[in-house]
Amino acid sequence: MASILLRGMILPMTGSGDFYPQGEIAIKGDSIFHVGPIGTTPESFISDQVLDLPNDVFMPGLVNTHTHAAMTILRGYADDLPLMRWLNEKIWPFEEKLSDEDIYWGTSLALCEMIMSGTTAMLDMYASMEQVAEAVIQAGTRAVLSRGLIGNGPNGQRALAENIELIKKYHGAGDGRVQVMFGPHAPYTCSGEFLREVSAEADKYGVGIHIHVAETKDEIDIIKEQYGKTPVQWLNELGLFKEQVVAAHCVHLTDEDMTILADKRVSVAHNPESNMKLNSGTARIPEMLDRGITVGLGTDGASSNNNLDLFGEMRTAAFQQKLVVNSTALPAYQVLEMATVNGAKALGLSTGVLAPGYKADIISVNFDQPHFYPRFSIPAHLVYSANGGDVRTTIVNGKILMQDRKLVTLDKDKICSEVETRAKKIAAQFE
Amino acid sequence: MASILLRGMILPMTGSGDFYPQGEIAIKGDSIFHVGPIGTTPESFISDQVLDLPNDVFMPGLVNTHTHAAMTILRGYADDLPLMRWLNEKIWPFEEKLSDEDIYWGTSLALCEMIMSGTTAMLDMYASMEQVAEAVIQAGTRAVLSRGLIGNGPNGQRALAENIELIKKYHGAGDGRVQVMFGPHAPYTCSGEFLREVSAEADKYGVGIHIHVAETKDEIDIIKEQYGKTPVQWLNELGLFKEQVVAAHCVHLTDEDMTILADKRVSVAHNPESNMKLNSGTARIPEMLDRGITVGLGTDGASSNNNLDLFGEMRTAAFQQKLVVNSTALPAYQVLEMATVNGAKALGLSTGVLAPGYKADIISVNFDQPHFYPRFSIPAHLVYSANGGDVRTTIVNGKILMQDRKLVTLDKDKICSEVETRAKKIAAQFE
Repeated sequence: MASILLRGMILPMTGSGDFYPQGEIAIKGDSIFHVGPIGTTPESFISDQVLDLPNDVFMPGLVNTHTHAAMTILRGYADDLPLMRWLNEKIWPFEEKLSDEDIYWGTSLALCEMIMSGTTAMLDMYASMEQVAEAVIQAGTRAVLSRGLIGNGPNGQRALAENIELIKKYHGAGDGRVQVMFGPHAPYTCSGEFLREVSAEADKYGVGIHIHVAETKDEIDIIKEQYGKTPVQWLNELGLFKEQVVAAHCVHLTDEDMTILADKRVSVAHNPESNMKLNSGTARIPEMLDRGITVGLGTDGASSNNNLDLFGEMRTAAFQQKLVVNSTALPAYQVLEMATVNGAKALGLSTGVLAPGYKADIISVNFDQPHFYPRFSIPAHLVYSANGGDVRTTIVNGKILMQDRKLVTLDKDKICSEVETRAKKIAAQFE
Repeated sequence: MASILLRGMILPMTGSGDFYPQGEIAIKGDSIFHVGPIGTTPESFISDQVLDLPNDVFMPGLVNTHTHAAMTILRGYADDLPLMRWLNEKIWPFEEKLSDEDIYWGTSLALCEMIMSGTTAMLDMYASMEQVAEAVIQAGTRAVLSRGLIGNGPNGQRALAENIELIKKYHGAGDGRVQVMFGPHAPYTCSGEFLREVSAEADKYGVGIHIHVAETKDEIDIIKEQYGKTPVQWLNELGLFKEQVVAAHCVHLTDEDMTILADKRVSVAHNPESNMKLNSGTARIPEMLDRGITVGLGTDGASSNNNLDLFGEMRTAAFQQKLVVNSTALPAYQVLEMATVNGAKALGLSTGVLAPGYKADIISVNFDQPHFYPRFSIPAHLVYSANGGDVRTTIVNGKILMQDRKLVTLDKDKICSEVETRAKKIAAQFE
């Protein structure tokens, strides 16, 4: 069982005042054994490896609560278009051409980028999820995987069967790093009957549900017309919220919707960059947090973002609320909580804070750079000044996945070149 | 006269279709001698130095059209507060304590960050501008400097005299890299009489004017109450727009205001991150561009941003318009034009495009990273996926200021540590 000792500044995310100007974190196996000021680690702890980074800030690895990792293969393929033209003419036709291997490589590219920008866990939704699981196991990251289920589509039942197969094969795989949820796509792409079926299966297998909810005004109109209620009210009536649910987006909620989400302990995955880029709108995040709803941060897929950098996502989350609400909305520490503590809670992970007993998912941010001086506020710098490229070290489950910006588990050059070739080959079919 | 040959991908910003998958840029002295595909540089060109970066994208250096560089010394000192508390209780009391040396070091820190994130020119407004000029001359960047003039304050006339002194001493200094403008702060801090005086002096010295205009709704109300018109109408009536004017912010404009700005060829400095963070609002950028107004990008000061990264600013500019207008607003190439061509035009610089005869202000962005694959669209990647840390090379006036992310002209460690000590010493006075 490997033991690592980390030394540097520490922002443990255990409370807004908690910070070690210089401290140490002892990792034993896959877990955190000790966190405290320099010299406080019990003498019984013998480290195989020491990372001495006095100018780095150690903090919990970031949790991406909503993404479609394989879609990095579409990065930059289509931008600046009206939503329906973007989907109908570009994204969907391209996606139809994706092979299992394309999805494996696209996901691997996403995982390179995530590790390099400090994201240690993701909640993913896509097809060919066994490929995604294999990519995650190889990369060494943590992931909760859901098979996207278009219940109203011709393959709804087959996809549901694949999701169940995914649970059987991969729930708990990779030393517990891989978990599985069901992925019914959205209330407008799945019937009430289908969603009840998913709910029953989630109950049976004891896993959660990952679903898009109230992303656009169009969705609200469609569901209102079809069922005479809001998407949240409709899902609640179906009984879906009896399960552990992560509802992605939740841009357009009524007060009653928020009460339901709070009462039913539904978690929300907030995706500000996608919501802005696709003109979806502004989610009422401060109000959700005030009501005690667990709100995490997500990037959505790379085709509507276009990167997977949660540092940028934190900044955008704060800016969007400050623009729409007021300049005090979503202060820096609260945004950091969304990207760490809340994300882990939403996904049911024992990560998101640096404290003994938690899994050792830890990153270090290189603060020896001009944009981190003067050092008045570490949280403000992380949210308003940092970007993913500032991450120096990424550790998941006690294992170093990136050191000094060098990837340990993945062959970046091979992955980039595979994706380049595959993406261009698919695009050529539409020229 | 030094000669440098650059090889790699080239986005010259001479037109939206223009791109060299592999090309070369020949620099002679301070200017661009040739741009074209590999092997097209005239044989007469002898290079002292060759930078062979096949995986980098060379593009014009970015132009920051509105900042207060010295304010990096306040980075992270106060965030997430209501505007007036932020100014009255934190920013202004701190600023009153700043010495000439603090301003020199704060500006030097800003210049480190700018060079490291690909910004080669800035339009600055602050006090002790001779210190700023010296820092710019030392750093090797390009800058247009304006003394901030609070006409209604007790030092209005003294500041105006300093601005004139600045012109005499520094206009054209540093091999022409330093230019000077007048910096009347805003229509609500300068009387009509004072602004007419500034206008006459600008005319006399043949320099431009840099002024905050229509930043907040409060400003609109104040000017309406005082003069019965909008800030733009008021400034136009005063005759200010007969000069070369850069109007910072312009968040709250009427249709008539935009017509005036277009007719009078007033340039606009758009600062989306500051506008969002301070809840100022959303400027009508696509409409301004449609009317032919030259709109550049700015970061504003680091205390309301909190970094000086124009790549992040480009992304935020696009996202903000897509959220408020629609998903097709401000496409990637148009945003790139704002940060390069338009910025240079606003400041009256012979930079912003890569073409023979222009000054050699050039950066390279390291595209050999996961978040730049697949390479479907270079402009989309630069706007939606890049950040300042991706810049590998920065060249200003034909001189390399950063190579392989190592600063050539500035001592980063010394500057960071000076600012850290000085900033904390001032803050300690308020504890």
